[in-house]
Amino acid sequence: MAGGAAFSDAKPTPILKDELDIVIPTIRNLDFLEMWRPYFEPYHLIIVQDGDPSRTVRVPDGFDYELFNRNDINRILGPKASCISFKDSACRCFGYLVSKKKYIFTIDDDCFVAKDPSGKEINALEQHIKNLLNPSTPLFFNTLYDPYREGADFVRGYPFSLREGVPTAVSHGLWLNIPDYDAPTQLAKPLERNTRFVDAVLTIPKGTLFPMCGMNLAFNRQLIGPAMYFGLMGDGQPIGRYDDMWAGWCMKVICDHLGYGVKTGLPYIWHSKASNPFVNLKKEYNGIFWQEELIPFFQSAVLTKECTTVQKCYLELSKQVKAKLGKIDPYFLKLADAMVTWVEAWDELNGSGENSLKLTNDPEK
Amino acid sequence: MAGGAAFSDAKPTPILKDELDIVIPTIRNLDFLEMWRPYFEPYHLIIVQDGDPSRTVRVPDGFDYELFNRNDINRILGPKASCISFKDSACRCFGYLVSKKKYIFTIDDDCFVAKDPSGKEINALEQHIKNLLNPSTPLFFNTLYDPYREGADFVRGYPFSLREGVPTAVSHGLWLNIPDYDAPTQLAKPLERNTRFVDAVLTIPKGTLFPMCGMNLAFNRQLIGPAMYFGLMGDGQPIGRYDDMWAGWCMKVICDHLGYGVKTGLPYIWHSKASNPFVNLKKEYNGIFWQEELIPFFQSAVLTKECTTVQKCYLELSKQVKAKLGKIDPYFLKLADAMVTWVEAWDELNGSGENSLKLTNDPEK
Repeated sequence: MAGGAAFSDAKPTPILKDELDIVIPTIRNLDFLEMWRPYFEPYHLIIVQDGDPSRTVRVPDGFDYELFNRNDINRILGPKASCISFKDSACRCFGYLVSKKKYIFTIDDDCFVAKDPSGKEINALEQHIKNLLNPSTPLFFNTLYDPYREGADFVRGYPFSLREGVPTAVSHGLWLNIPDYDAPTQLAKPLERNTRFVDAVLTIPKGTLFPMCGMNLAFNRQLIGPAMYFGLMGDGQPIGRYDDMWAGWCMKVICDHLGYGVKTGLPYIWHSKASNPFVNLKKEYNGIFWQEELIPFFQSAVLTKECTTVQKCYLELSKQVKAKLGKIDPYFLKLADAMVTWVEAWDELNGSGENSLKLTNDPEK
Repeated sequence: MAGGAAFSDAKPTPILKDELDIVIPTIRNLDFLEMWRPYFEPYHLIIVQDGDPSRTVRVPDGFDYELFNRNDINRILGPKASCISFKDSACRCFGYLVSKKKYIFTIDDDCFVAKDPSGKEINALEQHIKNLLNPSTPLFFNTLYDPYREGADFVRGYPFSLREGVPTAVSHGLWLNIPDYDAPTQLAKPLERNTRFVDAVLTIPKGTLFPMCGMNLAFNRQLIGPAMYFGLMGDGQPIGRYDDMWAGWCMKVICDHLGYGVKTGLPYIWHSKASNPFVNLKKEYNGIFWQEELIPFFQSAVLTKECTTVQKCYLELSKQVKAKLGKIDPYFLKLADAMVTWVEAWDELNGSGENSLKLTNDPEK
């Protein structure tokens, strides 16, 4: 009944060494891994190189890692490699495909360890694990934020039947210093820095969409992996910087349908460097127009009760993308096809949720 | 476009002296007004005495106030006084009826001035005014919380068409020290104190219900006043401590329908004293069961497009309460009638939104 008691912070957070991979979309910054060494060294890193395969990515000694470049992606996926973006950090989702772990933490190489207001370094990964291991509360809003946190609980008027919560699929972390703004806002407010440490984790309510940023993100790959496709961005595509947004909108519709939770808030990382707003504007240009139609599309998307696995949900969504967004731009027809290819690639490398379900329920067995 | 620039904290917050009333449901604690003196003295106080009219409520010198006891309520409302609760702080909504101001701030007499983490006293009223004067964003979630606050804005992926926001109807403030727990949680966690200062204001998304606490609450009476009815609680009723919850659920459904916003978070007050959990359990007992049916009722309540004013919405909701909740307990039949009486009383004292609309549009004029 009293949630806080059951999931207290007082219990040490497991580190899930054998259950979590860290996926990084290329590493240009040598300081990056050194700074995270005490936090990342226990884990396996999957580095997905986004550009020229002949360029060398240097990884300091002591890290357990795999590096995949474009040649590897092509070799492993064959013709299905077409669904993985080239020269764009959207390629990171290839790392989700090839991981065999239950949880994924993905982070950009310009994100460093942040400090809390007391000056203590924030162990971002530990907080993500906490967020993922505790339930979410998407069906009713708790005004004291995460009710499972130490010192908090469900407030008066919160229905008791909803206090068990639902499994958490995604933990969306935030950024101190450089906020994640679009190019127009970057241009309008070049000096704005995020200095506000908001000490909260909260569940995004069911039916509500949000802008999911891929900079500092963790998820339960087993629950929601096939929905975390970062789309077609970068080289040869008419759009960039909407990879994580696209994944977030698809993922949220599917989580709402399947009854999983999505959290945002803690942990913070220190985002060191604003990307070039002029370059960003060029990448975002189409997206700024298109999102005005994408949001109503996702807000009204309905998945039928036949959509019982993430894969089925995702394929159904790809059909709706083709039918309803194709008229905006032919890009969405290509994207809808890539969504199908992605799920095929997922099932090839991971098996479909469907099959494992079938095997369990097969009356012949 | 860049919201933060337009509504910066750098502008002094107006105090709205002639536009705001402070409504207090009785005052048992003499320190209460002394502590708030620097903040409340500029405003008009409406004190609604919840019990025996012969008991004297002492108000220190220097405050501009009106005091209404049960005899006043009966005199002013006549037979319609039946809709105002007796011997329960739910009677505070009588103050909303008789106010002539645009904004209301209501606070309990066991709530004191809190301090922020730097040790500075929090001007709760100023923060509520800020919340009410800035728009809300119920249609899409902003991960950096209130985008209109200094140092914040809308993040990448937030549709530009939604950045103007919608008018804010309600500002729900929080409590440090004693959290607003129900009796079972109070009993299970007698020592729990809320020590976490979360430096955020956020909009409760459209379609999401929350437990609205009446301890530290402000609203735009002109926008939403007739929906802020605190129901039938206390003496002669089978339920207590659900007055603010009831108002919150009705209000949220109506705000969602009419396109108004509801915020929660800052400001904090210092809640000094936990009410007796045994007494509370007796009051809440029925509510704990009933809310399990009330929440699905409010979650699925639909208002037709004919409901164009708060009054029309509220009367429609009262019909649905009668039709759908009457089967839970005859109490809800009585409550549905009281909801109608409340709107009649509102219109008698304030004029209906309807009439003012009619007069303006009357072709005969």
